[in-house]
Amino acid sequence: MANQISSPCSVQERSALFTDFYELTMSQGDWLKNKNRRAVFEMFFRRNPFKGGFSVFAGLETLLDCVKTFRFSDDDIQYLHSLKFFNEGFLDYLKDFKFTGSIYAMDEGSVVFPHEPLLRIDSTLIECQILEGLVLNTINFQSLIATKTARVKLAAGEGGIMEFGLRRAQGQDGALSASRASFIGGADGTSNTLAGKQFGIKVMGTMAHAWIMSFANEEDAFRTYAEVFPNNPVFLIDTYDTLKSGVLNAIKVGKEVIAHGGNFGVRLDSGDMYYLSKKVREMLDEAGCRNATITVSNDLDERIISTLTSQGAPINSWGVGTQMVTGGSDSAFTGVYKMMCLEDGNGNLKPTIKFSDNPEKTTTPAIKQIWRIYDKTGMTQADILAIDDPDNSDNSEKLDCCKKECFWHPSADYRHFYQTLDTAPQPLLKKCMEGGKQISQNPSLSEVQDFCKKELQTFDASYKRLLNPHIFKVAITTKLRTLKLDLIKNFLGDL
Amino acid sequence: MANQISSPCSVQERSALFTDFYELTMSQGDWLKNKNRRAVFEMFFRRNPFKGGFSVFAGLETLLDCVKTFRFSDDDIQYLHSLKFFNEGFLDYLKDFKFTGSIYAMDEGSVVFPHEPLLRIDSTLIECQILEGLVLNTINFQSLIATKTARVKLAAGEGGIMEFGLRRAQGQDGALSASRASFIGGADGTSNTLAGKQFGIKVMGTMAHAWIMSFANEEDAFRTYAEVFPNNPVFLIDTYDTLKSGVLNAIKVGKEVIAHGGNFGVRLDSGDMYYLSKKVREMLDEAGCRNATITVSNDLDERIISTLTSQGAPINSWGVGTQMVTGGSDSAFTGVYKMMCLEDGNGNLKPTIKFSDNPEKTTTPAIKQIWRIYDKTGMTQADILAIDDPDNSDNSEKLDCCKKECFWHPSADYRHFYQTLDTAPQPLLKKCMEGGKQISQNPSLSEVQDFCKKELQTFDASYKRLLNPHIFKVAITTKLRTLKLDLIKNFLGDL
Repeated sequence: MANQISSPCSVQERSALFTDFYELTMSQGDWLKNKNRRAVFEMFFRRNPFKGGFSVFAGLETLLDCVKTFRFSDDDIQYLHSLKFFNEGFLDYLKDFKFTGSIYAMDEGSVVFPHEPLLRIDSTLIECQILEGLVLNTINFQSLIATKTARVKLAAGEGGIMEFGLRRAQGQDGALSASRASFIGGADGTSNTLAGKQFGIKVMGTMAHAWIMSFANEEDAFRTYAEVFPNNPVFLIDTYDTLKSGVLNAIKVGKEVIAHGGNFGVRLDSGDMYYLSKKVREMLDEAGCRNATITVSNDLDERIISTLTSQGAPINSWGVGTQMVTGGSDSAFTGVYKMMCLEDGNGNLKPTIKFSDNPEKTTTPAIKQIWRIYDKTGMTQADILAIDDPDNSDNSEKLDCCKKECFWHPSADYRHFYQTLDTAPQPLLKKCMEGGKQISQNPSLSEVQDFCKKELQTFDASYKRLLNPHIFKVAITTKLRTLKLDLIKNFLGDL
Repeated sequence: MANQISSPCSVQERSALFTDFYELTMSQGDWLKNKNRRAVFEMFFRRNPFKGGFSVFAGLETLLDCVKTFRFSDDDIQYLHSLKFFNEGFLDYLKDFKFTGSIYAMDEGSVVFPHEPLLRIDSTLIECQILEGLVLNTINFQSLIATKTARVKLAAGEGGIMEFGLRRAQGQDGALSASRASFIGGADGTSNTLAGKQFGIKVMGTMAHAWIMSFANEEDAFRTYAEVFPNNPVFLIDTYDTLKSGVLNAIKVGKEVIAHGGNFGVRLDSGDMYYLSKKVREMLDEAGCRNATITVSNDLDERIISTLTSQGAPINSWGVGTQMVTGGSDSAFTGVYKMMCLEDGNGNLKPTIKFSDNPEKTTTPAIKQIWRIYDKTGMTQADILAIDDPDNSDNSEKLDCCKKECFWHPSADYRHFYQTLDTAPQPLLKKCMEGGKQISQNPSLSEVQDFCKKELQTFDASYKRLLNPHIFKVAITTKLRTLKLDLIKNFLGDL
């Protein structure tokens, strides 16, 4: 396919002004006060969206593309100057601003859970701060949509998923990024032609009511469409009356298509999808059109699809729009970005903690790796957060095969469990940028989709239940818990 | 301010591939079958979002900017060619594609209601179809966010609204478009620096927890910030303990700021906002800092703000993010785009209707104008849809002052009312594009904001109630009802 790119980072958004204003004022403070030392931030989230049992990490390639080119243009500097808020020396610093640090991340398409670092940014304090908005905006949105689509795909089982969200998406990039993230989560194609071109996603579509209305009658509309696209036309059959008119005309024209060696399908867009799909299937079968497919659309989401599939509705594919590309009633992935370490005045990197009266909101300090534990059959058992030292691997905790270990709830309370590691745990965070340059290879978007699908297969069905799922274990090592408790004690002692 | 533009239409999105794939396949059918005749489409919506009583129309300037430059590049044509779906002649037609028709629209910032045409596109069938996705995507999203913000502003009363949504918005344009639309709905400023530059919106911000954490203690953090920004620093006071630490340090440093002729504020970001704002206000006042302001943030929406203001919480300004820039649980404005007229083979423009078993979903045919009726004091009473003929104004219905008229429910049922027109009703749809060229002048974004504010003042408070509002009357003329009933009768007779 011509000109494939898989990241929706547009020219406009490469402006480093795409940042919250306070990042710039704080950065000026850091710069003037000589505080622009090394810092490490992590992005993580506190709850799965959609009351679900898992999330899908998406947006990494988009983010890396944007980070590489995130700059203040002369025009941007002139704008900042016009605000009469900034020091000339600091503006000179911004003129040459670019990201010079390291980024560690999960593989895109990973199945992820609350409290886990999805991403680590290791750079100077100012660079970490200025990137915050870009990191959160990109990863939050694409992860929301990849997660939603994975749920829709789980509900649909063998049925195909077509992403039809362009017209209801939140803005133009809201549509493009959603097409990309939906594909990662398991969509088979998109109606968004530009997303098809940019990301190499299969473009799909049927016909609109306006097509039917532009003809004297429905039969003419179907026949003309079949003449123009004889291969596999899909007839929209609810414009006038689905059972008394639409399906009858579809069968009449569809048989002509079959006679010429093609196949056809029908789309339902209103009415009760169970009742109509059963009736339409019967009528198609009775007419000998056993291979004709049934597609449905109309404000679908994973709950509606799940109800219909569990009733055995004979539906081959699902066109899903609004709910899938906006998240529906859960319209934001609540990722946050917190400082985990900061260099002190003597060049030593020190763990930091953000305290809160709510134990869930107190951060787990230090640079961390996540280790995923599998049983002997390859099913995932738990994820463990352990201390990582990117400068000296001897200081990093390593989780090895075959030992029995004690792990703790991340809120650092009394809950713990013992786990024997049957196989070698796998570290999930991988270095993808070093010295501001990408060192990882981007997988193709199809590879990311495959990876996500395979990842999901390693999780027991109880974690993937759409309603009231089993809570997957994410725990911290004893060493990390001790560090966290020490910092809390120090902090409470200060008050 | 340098380089102001007020529309987030980026290079990427000017590609006319930003359209649903079926628009292109149907268009090929129209092109091959010589059906590319004149057509008129309208955009309207069927329910106000957020269970509200009104909506705010936004996104017009963005849309017009994109329409003017909506083209298929050589690269786009090559991509379409690669799909092996399209006729070479049709691809040649697309190579020269540009919008050549007329657009009529409400003024941006208008207060609008279900069933009203927000926008009319009068052009060829293919042009109308290819624009559908762009029209709906742009207007749906910006209208959703302008409406949400207008509600937030109504809840906040005199309090300021700062839009803080960048990190949770749906993609990069989701953030930029949201900043623009929020401003139209009444936000005073944004944290999004790029939106500040592009749209000339005031940029705002305070400080992050990370700033505080990067110092040995809170007092140092506040003092350093005040040194760098001595004018009106806003101290974030919940990092350690709001009442026992944060407000005390803020007062200590704030008094130094006041002594140098400045003022200061504090921001609350967790805990009970009523309890804390009362206590903090008392402590500030007792310390003599009566002008110090209180800002709050933390997943606010119009319901939370309304509860707090009705309890008399002494809050000066509100930082609103996720809920305002995504719509929260109502994440899509449900605008649709339907054909109202189509030229027949003899060059006559004929009204079209989309029938549905659900009377609410049957369209009101024909080209329409909306007339807004005011009482003698200038308060809005009702909106009336009447037949419009852009080619011959003698055929247009005109609503004049001082007559008593009968108007009908838009579902064409038996409900009707008589209304004496006290003042001259005002037509709301205005021509803004002709022959593909913009003929209207874009107001500045501040003018749009002012217009929206003034519009809202002409509506009785009962329509603006956040919960369970009074339903504003939108009705159709007797002539339009007769036309609609005739078309329905024709249609039912055909079955």
